[in-house]
Amino acid sequence: MDKILPGRAPVYEMLEQYRVKGNISYHVPGHKNGEAYRGSETAGFLNEVMRYDVTEITGTDDLHHPEGVIREAQELAADCFGAEESFFLVGGSTAGNLALILTVCPEPGMTLILQRNVHKSVIHGLMLAGVRAVFIEPQIDPLSGLAVAPAAEAVQAALAAYPEAAAVLVTMPNYYGMGSDLAPLARVCHTSGVPLLVDEAHGAHYGQHPALPAGALMCGADGVVQSTHKMLPALTMGAMLHVQGPWLDRMLLRQRLAMVQSSSPSYPVMASLDLARRLVHSQGAGAFTAGLAAVDVLRRGLATLPRYGLLQPAVPLQGACSGAGAAAAASTPLQGMAAYSTQDPFKAVIYDAAGVLGGFELQRRLEEKGMVPEMSDDRHVVLAFSLGSKAEDTQRLLAALREIAGETGAAKQGALLECLHNEPAEVHVQASAKYSTWNNFTNDLISTPVLFSMKPVNPVETERVPLEYSAGRTAAEMVIPYPPGIPLLYPGEWISEDICNRLISLRQGGAKFQACADPALQHIQVYNNKKGGDA
Amino acid sequence: MDKILPGRAPVYEMLEQYRVKGNISYHVPGHKNGEAYRGSETAGFLNEVMRYDVTEITGTDDLHHPEGVIREAQELAADCFGAEESFFLVGGSTAGNLALILTVCPEPGMTLILQRNVHKSVIHGLMLAGVRAVFIEPQIDPLSGLAVAPAAEAVQAALAAYPEAAAVLVTMPNYYGMGSDLAPLARVCHTSGVPLLVDEAHGAHYGQHPALPAGALMCGADGVVQSTHKMLPALTMGAMLHVQGPWLDRMLLRQRLAMVQSSSPSYPVMASLDLARRLVHSQGAGAFTAGLAAVDVLRRGLATLPRYGLLQPAVPLQGACSGAGAAAAASTPLQGMAAYSTQDPFKAVIYDAAGVLGGFELQRRLEEKGMVPEMSDDRHVVLAFSLGSKAEDTQRLLAALREIAGETGAAKQGALLECLHNEPAEVHVQASAKYSTWNNFTNDLISTPVLFSMKPVNPVETERVPLEYSAGRTAAEMVIPYPPGIPLLYPGEWISEDICNRLISLRQGGAKFQACADPALQHIQVYNNKKGGDA
Repeated sequence: MDKILPGRAPVYEMLEQYRVKGNISYHVPGHKNGEAYRGSETAGFLNEVMRYDVTEITGTDDLHHPEGVIREAQELAADCFGAEESFFLVGGSTAGNLALILTVCPEPGMTLILQRNVHKSVIHGLMLAGVRAVFIEPQIDPLSGLAVAPAAEAVQAALAAYPEAAAVLVTMPNYYGMGSDLAPLARVCHTSGVPLLVDEAHGAHYGQHPALPAGALMCGADGVVQSTHKMLPALTMGAMLHVQGPWLDRMLLRQRLAMVQSSSPSYPVMASLDLARRLVHSQGAGAFTAGLAAVDVLRRGLATLPRYGLLQPAVPLQGACSGAGAAAAASTPLQGMAAYSTQDPFKAVIYDAAGVLGGFELQRRLEEKGMVPEMSDDRHVVLAFSLGSKAEDTQRLLAALREIAGETGAAKQGALLECLHNEPAEVHVQASAKYSTWNNFTNDLISTPVLFSMKPVNPVETERVPLEYSAGRTAAEMVIPYPPGIPLLYPGEWISEDICNRLISLRQGGAKFQACADPALQHIQVYNNKKGGDA
Repeated sequence: MDKILPGRAPVYEMLEQYRVKGNISYHVPGHKNGEAYRGSETAGFLNEVMRYDVTEITGTDDLHHPEGVIREAQELAADCFGAEESFFLVGGSTAGNLALILTVCPEPGMTLILQRNVHKSVIHGLMLAGVRAVFIEPQIDPLSGLAVAPAAEAVQAALAAYPEAAAVLVTMPNYYGMGSDLAPLARVCHTSGVPLLVDEAHGAHYGQHPALPAGALMCGADGVVQSTHKMLPALTMGAMLHVQGPWLDRMLLRQRLAMVQSSSPSYPVMASLDLARRLVHSQGAGAFTAGLAAVDVLRRGLATLPRYGLLQPAVPLQGACSGAGAAAAASTPLQGMAAYSTQDPFKAVIYDAAGVLGGFELQRRLEEKGMVPEMSDDRHVVLAFSLGSKAEDTQRLLAALREIAGETGAAKQGALLECLHNEPAEVHVQASAKYSTWNNFTNDLISTPVLFSMKPVNPVETERVPLEYSAGRTAAEMVIPYPPGIPLLYPGEWISEDICNRLISLRQGGAKFQACADPALQHIQVYNNKKGGDA
């Protein structure tokens, strides 16, 4: 494609032209552009999209071998997001994470360095690829108690200890929109000759507006996965994988992508990726004006509602990121950089500063009033705004928050607030100090290697114990609170008292769990004997 | 769920109610029910579906841990399709095939018996699971030269030779809608204590009408994957996995499904699975009346157009299938059953009986006239009808076929037809005899075991040769004509003269190839030395 035309949307436009042609379908899908639903048996709200739900026929190209409109659309995406090459994904960031891990660790037993607090799709990638994983303790933000990415020094130390590592993988931003400067991590990786992979599922919008943190590609990452459906306006399961630099085997990556995704990728999902890209590409920063204005309404409203706190970094990052070049390398020290220095403004993480309502309860009350948050933990509620948010809706949100404040603990409010104004940090630290250790395998920053495989747990080696008695045992199942979908335990992992307490707290708050035998987590599967080592 | 109500569509209905509630979204996806597209930046034909594109929030359930509407919808599907348990898939039959293989072969080196002519997703499953594969030569229909499923005797012989096999996997029907009786295969598998897995991607509609062949579940298969989007009216990527019997570890299967699919499954896709199931479940055989009538128009029209042949079994199966019970076992001999005894009426496979137009050319001419087939090979064109096909469209198809007949070889037509009427079989055999051998690894019915892995091919060990000179060499890349997406070569497979000729013929006809370095297939990657053994 000779000229970049941001206002084009090749896949979407091709589908519109396909309709106009009026060809008769003797190909799949079987709904025949929705015609299968006639008379009383309507397809209702799916009618319209079915008219454009095609398959790989002449002119529609092929995601697994793009030469036409899909290739053009991907090239436009690369230009828009600052990649050398971009891949549309129809299987979500899951597909991107699996493919990247299967690419950098193409054979079992290869070493990958990664933070412990990764999305389950990354843990699944470790299993599928038979990775020898070296986990790094995430840094904990002391005020919120929430885990962010590892420090560059920790990554550097892990690379020094494990020079055989094939790559480093981190998550940035986290589910709460918290982040730090990735550029130093990219530099230490490249100094060691390995690629930096970033699960940027929550940051597809990064770098597209001055008020937004810099994206991973800008900071020098080599492979970046984005959920375009989360923070940009693509359909659910629409995601992208971006690559740059010499470190990744792109031919192998294409093969892995073809393995982990459907051979019949959805054209509506691909068209939505095209539209999301076009909106951002052609409007630039202007695409985010209205959404940021909606966020601003919340901020200004919260300033008049001292009952609620809003998560912010104590030490915000000045400027986009410390840059990926040599000058930056000379001038920016690795040490002393804040664990949490960037915040996605679209992730408004609020909490009851009076400590009356935990996060789960606050979420429930908001839902009762028709405001549906993204998720909560025992303290915080995550409100996910986006470029599609409206200021008038935020007014309604503020009204709901005022009502909840009025309905809960009004009598105590005055005294508590006075206390908070004097010593805000103390309350937060008390709330979060319990969760200061994330890596269950060891109390060091860097774990000993953990060998993952697809081998199922042998039930004969396991027993069921009440959750309260599981501290000190070894997990025999995966435990994944969802959201956010980060496994707090994988099979073979030692259960610390911290993690046990965290699970109890989550359970009490009403969190949902995936993967474990008892979804209510009254009981947990553990190994018969205290067992460490391979997962 | 106490009572089965075929007219319900729990997921679809939940989404409708979600809209009515009018809640404000502070959760993903970022398009905020399409609101992100305002003013000049429209989402066009995606507007409507975006309004219903939600995520896992209160009341919407969770595909990876279904307790509410998704669980109900899956239970209804199990009732509709005759399974004990059914799983909605949002990653196509690909996800189902990968998950099944990773379940029956949970550790590397386990043995799986399967036909050689499987979909690429199955080969990818072998790689991901590190399977030790024993391939069975598919039976070839002598009239068409097309490959179908293996004979029950071959499966039995393979099970006797490899008693360590964990399962048997076959494809039924094939892309052309051709099939045979699965019940004897299920019986030999169960006699050996292993499950029968069936890739029924092209047969989601089977068993739902007397004119349709029996489905795999009815014939006794244990794990069955269906592309509900191909032959039933779900959105592309919508598929189902059905299980019955004691042979499959369903808890492990659930884990594998959660690994290979997005953690953010598409609600529109799931709703479309629900609607497709409801249509068939509530209308029963009546759902197919109109589509079968459209097919009948074609049959009657072709009877007046002797220029074209329509693929039919020489020996059609009498009745649904020979049944899975003991009485059937006693009465139905394994030997002598036709390789090709059932034909999906919705797959109208036509060919130029005069031999003037090859399949690729016939497809091109049909497309020029606005009739778009599903696929073609060097001889045949596959026209995929469905329950959504209309009789008036078939009239237009017949008109196009008449025009093409008139435009091509009219002078020779008379003489050729006379010849055909006297000796029809001879022409067909001449066309197909070239492709009598499918299994490249050996000329026996059953291959020696092939150990698959994710290990990439080492470029140092390979070289590029013109396709014409590749016979006798060992492939160093995957070669997949698409459609139908069946790898004709995998890395490490010996290239027979048959396969070499087939590839040349496909290339000349204009077939598209995936996975190989030269998409035009002028050249092919082979190993430096004649190498066999592990893939």
